[in-house]
Amino acid sequence: MDYYFLGVKRMRLYSSNASGYSRKVRIVAIELGLDARLERIDQSPRDNTTGFFAVSPLARIPVLLTDEGYALYDSPVICEYLNTLAGGSLIPATGVARWNALRRQALGDGILDNGLPLRGELMRRPAMLSAEVVARHREAIERALTLADAEADAYPTSTPDIGTIAIGCAVGWLDFRMPDFGWRANRPQLAAWLAELGQRPSFAATRPE
Amino acid sequence: MDYYFLGVKRMRLYSSNASGYSRKVRIVAIELGLDARLERIDQSPRDNTTGFFAVSPLARIPVLLTDEGYALYDSPVICEYLNTLAGGSLIPATGVARWNALRRQALGDGILDNGLPLRGELMRRPAMLSAEVVARHREAIERALTLADAEADAYPTSTPDIGTIAIGCAVGWLDFRMPDFGWRANRPQLAAWLAELGQRPSFAATRPE
Repeated sequence: MDYYFLGVKRMRLYSSNASGYSRKVRIVAIELGLDARLERIDQSPRDNTTGFFAVSPLARIPVLLTDEGYALYDSPVICEYLNTLAGGSLIPATGVARWNALRRQALGDGILDNGLPLRGELMRRPAMLSAEVVARHREAIERALTLADAEADAYPTSTPDIGTIAIGCAVGWLDFRMPDFGWRANRPQLAAWLAELGQRPSFAATRPE
Repeated sequence: MDYYFLGVKRMRLYSSNASGYSRKVRIVAIELGLDARLERIDQSPRDNTTGFFAVSPLARIPVLLTDEGYALYDSPVICEYLNTLAGGSLIPATGVARWNALRRQALGDGILDNGLPLRGELMRRPAMLSAEVVARHREAIERALTLADAEADAYPTSTPDIGTIAIGCAVGWLDFRMPDFGWRANRPQLAAWLAELGQRPSFAATRPE
């Protein structure tokens, strides 16, 4: 299962521009200088017409087919694999820096974990919509954003890590999928931080449309 | 934020016996010989009466308050922290063994990620229940279980790792919360493997009731 392009062996990444988890992996690959190694397959997670579920039984994206030909998921595992492959430092190797970066990744991914079912709930017919489910997901996102805002002074934009990349992708997804969420109103630090982070080539090249 | 018990410094684990993710962390701690280091707080993820959301803004369990006094989540991050603290080998350090173990953890956790909203959906009033949502989650779980069954010959019970522990906790949760799921019918290898794994003291001591 080797893929070559212009003589370079490539891994296959099943992803979508609309997926915040996919964007995180793409940004990680760009920051690590691995983007040219990825053959990107635009994949809707629920579309099995090309046999995607054989690669991703949980019907999720992103999935990476590695150099060795096996499928990797979920996105934190793919990001660590790429960071190791490149000898990168997007995930600190040891100590408090590592746990803090991984904890922030879980915070960012957790915003998406709540945002996706929130959006799904809001798309239901009114008679089938649960206000309790909407409130639960929305409140989780609000609290996570408030923590991110409080921490944002400590988030560098010049040297992103897996934690800040995940948070950047989560709020970028909110802007894309739920533009009326209004998260900036009481979170000026996080808003200013995201505006600067969005200038990075890796973020600019992966903005969802 | 140090906790002592019989002179031993303790970390605080917010968890619940009913949570498959929490059980994974508890089993990891037992297998690593760290269980006595954990002060366990029985915590419902939606209960903020004691201020839990300040520790866990996403309202999730498990959360670990570490020796250094900071909060760690989600469960894969906690498991890696404990494995590092103990110098353990539940998460292989490098190579294909590492990626395969982490990928299996994502497969097991992904069963829970689908099982929880599936159960939530099935508890709705019939008029508010979406057959499409039920089918989507159920099919994802069925495919993940079928992959686990196909792989089960390669799952050791004598030396569990983070991947097989996660899968054991996921199917254990199904047995606990969705006893009529009927996953054993066409998956004899996975069923036999789980029966043997369940004999381990770490699994027996954490069985949900």
